[in-house]
Amino acid sequence: MTPRFPFAPLLVALVMAGAGSTAWSNTLPGKSAAVGIVPHAALKTRTVEYRDGDQVLEGYLAYDEAKPGKRPAVLIVHDWKGVGTYVKQRADQLAKLGYLAFAVDVYGKGVRPQTAEAAGALAGTYKQDRALFRSRLLAGYRAMLASPQADATRTAAIGYCFGGTGVLELARSGADLNGVVSFHGGLDSPAPEDGKNIKAKVLILHGAEDPFVPAKDVDAFLAEMRAANVDWQMISYGGAVHSFTNPEVGNDASTGAAYNASADRRSWGAMRQFFGELFDASGGKLADR
Amino acid sequence: MTPRFPFAPLLVALVMAGAGSTAWSNTLPGKSAAVGIVPHAALKTRTVEYRDGDQVLEGYLAYDEAKPGKRPAVLIVHDWKGVGTYVKQRADQLAKLGYLAFAVDVYGKGVRPQTAEAAGALAGTYKQDRALFRSRLLAGYRAMLASPQADATRTAAIGYCFGGTGVLELARSGADLNGVVSFHGGLDSPAPEDGKNIKAKVLILHGAEDPFVPAKDVDAFLAEMRAANVDWQMISYGGAVHSFTNPEVGNDASTGAAYNASADRRSWGAMRQFFGELFDASGGKLADR
Repeated sequence: MTPRFPFAPLLVALVMAGAGSTAWSNTLPGKSAAVGIVPHAALKTRTVEYRDGDQVLEGYLAYDEAKPGKRPAVLIVHDWKGVGTYVKQRADQLAKLGYLAFAVDVYGKGVRPQTAEAAGALAGTYKQDRALFRSRLLAGYRAMLASPQADATRTAAIGYCFGGTGVLELARSGADLNGVVSFHGGLDSPAPEDGKNIKAKVLILHGAEDPFVPAKDVDAFLAEMRAANVDWQMISYGGAVHSFTNPEVGNDASTGAAYNASADRRSWGAMRQFFGELFDASGGKLADR
Repeated sequence: MTPRFPFAPLLVALVMAGAGSTAWSNTLPGKSAAVGIVPHAALKTRTVEYRDGDQVLEGYLAYDEAKPGKRPAVLIVHDWKGVGTYVKQRADQLAKLGYLAFAVDVYGKGVRPQTAEAAGALAGTYKQDRALFRSRLLAGYRAMLASPQADATRTAAIGYCFGGTGVLELARSGADLNGVVSFHGGLDSPAPEDGKNIKAKVLILHGAEDPFVPAKDVDAFLAEMRAANVDWQMISYGGAVHSFTNPEVGNDASTGAAYNASADRRSWGAMRQFFGELFDASGGKLADR
């Protein structure tokens, strides 16, 4: 199945907030529009329709058209709500940093649960059926690499919550990735022996007080990593609970999910440092594995 | 007791290996001497004699004389062998990055154990007597701040192994530091209630397979941090054992202590990111606590 790009490209010229800036607020469109300032980036974004078998899926692609050549390509796996504002903003952030970013659609075109109940039920479907989950993720990975701007030799995947579980499943499938990053993702696996398939370096960004990722899951995950001799790192952020990177969930940590500005900023910085190691130092795929 | 600086300053002009370079090999003096290349940094280093009560101590100070103004000041706490080549090289690295670096002497002038047995016994003395340990560390902290190039409002402490325990003891003493960083340090405390005195942000850089920092110590430490509501982060490096930043210990991980180039590079980068948060973003002490 060949990925298709039926939508006319939408060219949005944005003033970059500075390559060193990672604050969430700097990514909001309202802060990017400035008259009379020379734009440093030409952010190109579009929805991308593609398929996994008969299922039509709709992802979101972003890259900086001002940057020449093929870019390291970063897949973004959404949380339980599906492709929405949050992952699109993350894609835009990554594009401004020079990456090609593609927000994969696990659920299907138009399938965007609006309530926690619906999102939980849908996410549960894929967490129960890891083969289907992997199939959807691999379809997105192939769709991303079909973009002529993507450098297939320099790839990573990041994911949030449900999507953090997703990037690990993608790695466990044996996908050819330089690295994966889980932001407050679930770490459980029904088949820990699949850890042996992992080629990617693994970075886990974990809220130390996340009630949805309990210590027993962390311990089991680390046992999986050790048994498979994976190149892994885990950062635990004190005081952070689930969804610590997402302002949409609010600030009440007592609910078990809350935004944490400090952990958000630190985890984004850790991801950037990780990408630097993956893409800049080695200059190519898997060079220093 | 006023710190004294009796030694004539030694001015060493070195070619910087590049501000972004953190590789250990770039810090070796042999790589720094280059004829005919304009130096970007004027690395100034000297031994500093100071006292804790009647005990004479001898630390090592380094800063870049080409940089104007007061610098953020970083205390470096040595491992069980005392002030030696390793911490001096780390001080030089930090100086090249723009910090004033001071390698504190916990043991006393001329007390430099040459064998593991002697080092272990000496380190054990201070780990048993935390009041004495803190007193020596605070003396070094004051000696550092006596340098006119030190910015007393922007301070941190880093430490290796025994020194990692040291920076935590310094923090537990209530010392006025923006942050402390432990590299493969011991995390145990005989008085976990002292966690409440900690003002510094805490970054723990931990070898996930370090047999000298067992899981029970990690758990107790995190309980201490939580109980005291400390701003803490911990990074665990897969495959890394004790002393992972120190090439002097060799490469045989089966001994429980071994250099790990990847964990060395990553942990140094994490420290730099942490310092950026402490010193660059806030622009002053404790601004964003």
